[in-house]
Amino acid sequence: MYFKEKADIFGGVTVSSTDLQPSQKEKDMFREIMSKSLDHWRSRKVKGVWVKVNIADSDIIPVLVENGFEFHHTQPNYLMMTKWLPDTPSTLPRYAHTMIGVGGLVIDEEGRVLLMRERRGYYLGWKFPGGASDPGESIFDTAAREVLEETGVRAVGKALLCLRQINVSQYENVGDLFFVCLMDVINPEIKPCPRETAACRWFTREELENLPEEEFHEFHREIMRRYDTWKKSGRRGCHMASCHFTSRKCQMYYID
Amino acid sequence: MYFKEKADIFGGVTVSSTDLQPSQKEKDMFREIMSKSLDHWRSRKVKGVWVKVNIADSDIIPVLVENGFEFHHTQPNYLMMTKWLPDTPSTLPRYAHTMIGVGGLVIDEEGRVLLMRERRGYYLGWKFPGGASDPGESIFDTAAREVLEETGVRAVGKALLCLRQINVSQYENVGDLFFVCLMDVINPEIKPCPRETAACRWFTREELENLPEEEFHEFHREIMRRYDTWKKSGRRGCHMASCHFTSRKCQMYYID
Repeated sequence: MYFKEKADIFGGVTVSSTDLQPSQKEKDMFREIMSKSLDHWRSRKVKGVWVKVNIADSDIIPVLVENGFEFHHTQPNYLMMTKWLPDTPSTLPRYAHTMIGVGGLVIDEEGRVLLMRERRGYYLGWKFPGGASDPGESIFDTAAREVLEETGVRAVGKALLCLRQINVSQYENVGDLFFVCLMDVINPEIKPCPRETAACRWFTREELENLPEEEFHEFHREIMRRYDTWKKSGRRGCHMASCHFTSRKCQMYYID
Repeated sequence: MYFKEKADIFGGVTVSSTDLQPSQKEKDMFREIMSKSLDHWRSRKVKGVWVKVNIADSDIIPVLVENGFEFHHTQPNYLMMTKWLPDTPSTLPRYAHTMIGVGGLVIDEEGRVLLMRERRGYYLGWKFPGGASDPGESIFDTAAREVLEETGVRAVGKALLCLRQINVSQYENVGDLFFVCLMDVINPEIKPCPRETAACRWFTREELENLPEEEFHEFHREIMRRYDTWKKSGRRGCHMASCHFTSRKCQMYYID
């Protein structure tokens, strides 16, 4: 008796704990079937074994650890564990290890710039509103949502001005990509979020220049210089185009 | 008796299983201390509780599940579980949920384009060499490594031509960002990787135009048109600059 499995095109198999009978999830029975299944997979030259453990079935996790499985990734309600069977190095694909953040550079018709201060965090000076993207969001969508949440201002993405890649983030072995997104204002009225935003306002360029370094970081000043260069060029910059190359929802950002 | 904890600036605490005494990791004892610790944290208005479970301590995972902890993220050797204590919606930061891939557009002095075919995968036509980035790699580093691994050709990143964002990937709720990186050839000699590469060669533009649609996808043809536009413009495009805004290793990509 072996586990019910699903094969993939890369020579691997996946077992889902939700497909197992209650008796198969009892620790001793699970241990016994796993031992037989591993022999069976090895004899069939299976490469990677994936076991998706529903959070309700967490009792089987220690048995998977005993059998040499490693943690691969999670979602709130399941843990994926993997084991590579051949003697060659593992070619199992890695899970996501990059955080995506977007800052909105929102400038009104008079050339004033929207800035905010976080209530908590490592940098508490003035900064462009923005934050981390949610799953499924386009870069422009993240910019619009975060600017709205933090400042109340409605704005839409127009072009990406630059991107910054940092190789460390708050999580081990996880990097961070931060996009600066130029935005057009739809409604300039400020209604800051009291939980996140300590302060929020429109600044003239002169006011920005008079802020001390610790209140407005050199990174933000450089962005303003890059904005001026972009504006003077009259170019579109890195704009979004709808994408017709796949049936899945997709955005192309072309650099013109 | 409570768990040893570390406080963060966002009102949360972290407990690491590697800091616990062996007796505290025994299931019944762990259950008892967790119950007292949760009361203690609630009375102190702690917000998020993070428990980092070393893989050797996986026996405590079912007890954390009993106590309402969810899976947050993993690395191969640990599982991070979290619980939000207040009645308000959780503001615990999400883990990374974006895959980063890079394709290298390598064109030699005669204008020939380097293409390869995968041995396994969903698209088996000709494509630009490239692949998923490793943790800690810059976008240009990924392009250089993947082109070398898949084709043997040595090339270095010069500019990003475009990026594509797809909201789904091989993992649930995980998106995919794909950068097309223009590269300069350092050594054009082809030595394809037998495990990954089914075929690899330099194509003249005429040969590319004569490939049928199923052998050379419209996405790749569009990239070639964008390359021609970029080349004619004489502009630098989205190039990398060293970044001096943080003490952490960092790259800026400016769009000029």
